[in-house]
Amino acid sequence: MAENKIPYKIYLDESEIPSKWYNLRADMKNKPAPLLNPGTHQPMTAAELEGVFCSELVAQELDNESRYIDIPEEIQNFYKMYRPAPLVRAYYLEKALGTPAKIYYKFEGNNTSGSHKLNSAIAQAYYAKKQGLKGVTTETGAGQWGTALSMACSYFDLDCKVYMVKVSYEQKPFRREVMRTYGASVTPSPSATTQVGQKILAEHPGTTGSLGCAISEAVEAAVTNEGYRYVLGSVLNQVLLHQSIIGLEAKAAMDKYGIKPDIIIGCAGGGSNLGGLIAPFMGEKLRGEADYRIIAVEPKSCPSFTRGVYAYDFADTGMVCPLAKMYTLGSDFIPAPNHAGGLRYHGMSPVLSQLYADGLMEATSVAQTEVFAAAEMFARVEGTLPAPESSHAIRAAIDEALKCKETGEEKTILFGLTGTGYFDMLAYEKYHDKKMTDYVPTDEELAVYRAKLPKID
Amino acid sequence: MAENKIPYKIYLDESEIPSKWYNLRADMKNKPAPLLNPGTHQPMTAAELEGVFCSELVAQELDNESRYIDIPEEIQNFYKMYRPAPLVRAYYLEKALGTPAKIYYKFEGNNTSGSHKLNSAIAQAYYAKKQGLKGVTTETGAGQWGTALSMACSYFDLDCKVYMVKVSYEQKPFRREVMRTYGASVTPSPSATTQVGQKILAEHPGTTGSLGCAISEAVEAAVTNEGYRYVLGSVLNQVLLHQSIIGLEAKAAMDKYGIKPDIIIGCAGGGSNLGGLIAPFMGEKLRGEADYRIIAVEPKSCPSFTRGVYAYDFADTGMVCPLAKMYTLGSDFIPAPNHAGGLRYHGMSPVLSQLYADGLMEATSVAQTEVFAAAEMFARVEGTLPAPESSHAIRAAIDEALKCKETGEEKTILFGLTGTGYFDMLAYEKYHDKKMTDYVPTDEELAVYRAKLPKID
Repeated sequence: MAENKIPYKIYLDESEIPSKWYNLRADMKNKPAPLLNPGTHQPMTAAELEGVFCSELVAQELDNESRYIDIPEEIQNFYKMYRPAPLVRAYYLEKALGTPAKIYYKFEGNNTSGSHKLNSAIAQAYYAKKQGLKGVTTETGAGQWGTALSMACSYFDLDCKVYMVKVSYEQKPFRREVMRTYGASVTPSPSATTQVGQKILAEHPGTTGSLGCAISEAVEAAVTNEGYRYVLGSVLNQVLLHQSIIGLEAKAAMDKYGIKPDIIIGCAGGGSNLGGLIAPFMGEKLRGEADYRIIAVEPKSCPSFTRGVYAYDFADTGMVCPLAKMYTLGSDFIPAPNHAGGLRYHGMSPVLSQLYADGLMEATSVAQTEVFAAAEMFARVEGTLPAPESSHAIRAAIDEALKCKETGEEKTILFGLTGTGYFDMLAYEKYHDKKMTDYVPTDEELAVYRAKLPKID
Repeated sequence: MAENKIPYKIYLDESEIPSKWYNLRADMKNKPAPLLNPGTHQPMTAAELEGVFCSELVAQELDNESRYIDIPEEIQNFYKMYRPAPLVRAYYLEKALGTPAKIYYKFEGNNTSGSHKLNSAIAQAYYAKKQGLKGVTTETGAGQWGTALSMACSYFDLDCKVYMVKVSYEQKPFRREVMRTYGASVTPSPSATTQVGQKILAEHPGTTGSLGCAISEAVEAAVTNEGYRYVLGSVLNQVLLHQSIIGLEAKAAMDKYGIKPDIIIGCAGGGSNLGGLIAPFMGEKLRGEADYRIIAVEPKSCPSFTRGVYAYDFADTGMVCPLAKMYTLGSDFIPAPNHAGGLRYHGMSPVLSQLYADGLMEATSVAQTEVFAAAEMFARVEGTLPAPESSHAIRAAIDEALKCKETGEEKTILFGLTGTGYFDMLAYEKYHDKKMTDYVPTDEELAVYRAKLPKID
């Protein structure tokens, strides 16, 4: 390694952290479809959205034209606490695979929240503060997003109300305590603090909750508490905008050393990481300046891209949010409980959905046990213990590198390592104890959920 | 912040990672006292030590003369996976405290094992591999050292047998699973796999284990298995040597920006972090080239420096290891179970003990709830969630910075942030739920253990 000119980790200087986010939509010929009012099926207006979301974030959500948006100085200052994130040359993984491919990964787990989610959390908290709000509400499952948001709110001295799916609240207390360390109030959902929670508790006294229910409670809490708005960690256009910092930094680091990736790989749940990682590369592709193979990787247990349909659907199980046009499995779809690998969202970012529909990117799905095998191999040779979500991208990167081994091609592969697996050790334990199984929904199962999609022309 | 010339995080270039460890003992006028054979009370010979430890590590243990020792290239390559570790200017903490002091911390938690322990683990694994051994054995409590060692052994394809205190094995399964991810075998101690374990199980069938018992099992496993040696993560001279990389990097980063610390603060359990952090600074002090205030911080519940005695004592509760001259509370001393903040070792590095006895450094002790208050404040303003152990240093750094606020002095403070608290959220939970209490042993308690110290002239 020592003789190679490219260091193991490429760190940009602090002064090279991007000062603008890149808005991919500006370069898209076919813009993502607008959000629709669930009652009228008409495009949501800014005024309607501002009842739920912060005004500046609504403006970003609807802005399909501005190519760059300045990152406010306060957010830039916060970014300096954990950015630039390193671009790592996976020399050890290459050697272990015996591949001629050159593998790079952008590592976003070097912050206490443990993932890339912080990039958007701090932006959303900033605009909430700027608007003079008291606080924000959100939902969280295992807690990655809630943790990031609580850190961001602590920095801007904003109240942060997190509705956490009850089963996670009780069985995964660690991220809950990280959130409390940052001063957030964490409520197990369903709870008696909202009408929708009370209703669900009355109907299903023993329920352990669901993400859909937690979203509904968080939205109700935002709308009914003076000075609060609701925030979301993925799927939305604004989130992809903030996450473009991942791709901008990765591209700057690669440009600095004259590296051009042939293949760019990201895991995809709601699309926040993938959309951010690929943004500047996809921009070049859309403008005809360069070409890249771009691959979304999803779990076989929740295959929105590869087995879903491109249609308007509810963004949440509770059906209180606007309708979004996206690749979806149906808003009632929930992966089987044996799926421990994250990326459980039934839909996909409207931006990425449009790009996929236009043939500008590929998608593949991988089985959970293959993902954990890749995760363990990666941990052993590269040191870093990856999050299960991130490991979907590792799996696909390894598979592409092994193809290079067969063909002898020296392709350059870039993938996103979105976070660490410190809080996912129960999933690793299942894998070690050979209790982990793969779940692949049948065509019949998927058809049941697809039939329930709202009918929109 | 933006206008300040000193970046938030100072990263050395990869080429600036030190290529030699610094051996503080070479500059000590009064050398640390030698280890003694527990049977004969004579200094342990290299031959005796080599029955338990790797030969090259024994040489390092006994070498009081070589000022620098080359870091083998294989170890340098591994260091590049997670080093250089950043030196961070705590701008946000300074602002929150309103202090004129300038606070810096060297952050060693940016690797999967989550702490500085990896710096020595990789060195010890390397020398074991070089000696042609099959594997190594060790003990671990909550698992920080075991995790680091399992990563290191995975890198060199060495077998790694970890004896983990049973109560931690059962109640803190997360680090256990990280170790298994890296291929280590983790055995709850006491176990039926050793004679000493069988004996203890027969006498105390319901025991949940102790560190002392785990050490005894690990040493027995090393001695009775062909091709194995025992390794230890703190206390020993060799460990401080390897950990000097912390101080060397910190000093190089400070020198680069013309910064000279007035006060250097480190938490102290067995002394591995503190000894490493202060090494090059103490070297200058010993050679009369510069002066620094150096402060060891320990918990009030386990106050080896501040309330112990400087005497020969057993290094382990099982009394199978050599005798070491050190500040000690007695080898039977165990902090009360309500102490969740780590740093539970009854003794202290012989090197640091000699320096303290010679008046070259200070020591202070802090109460657990004060430590967690500092930890939570630090997390909120600086982002990073600190390990309870590291937070002892944070507490003392904050206290020194507050003194500067009173006096108006612009002192420069450097402290070691040894690791992250991701696996310590149950302790944080106790703190949040106001169930955490402080424990301070009475003089009478301490006298009981002191009376049991071995009588050595």
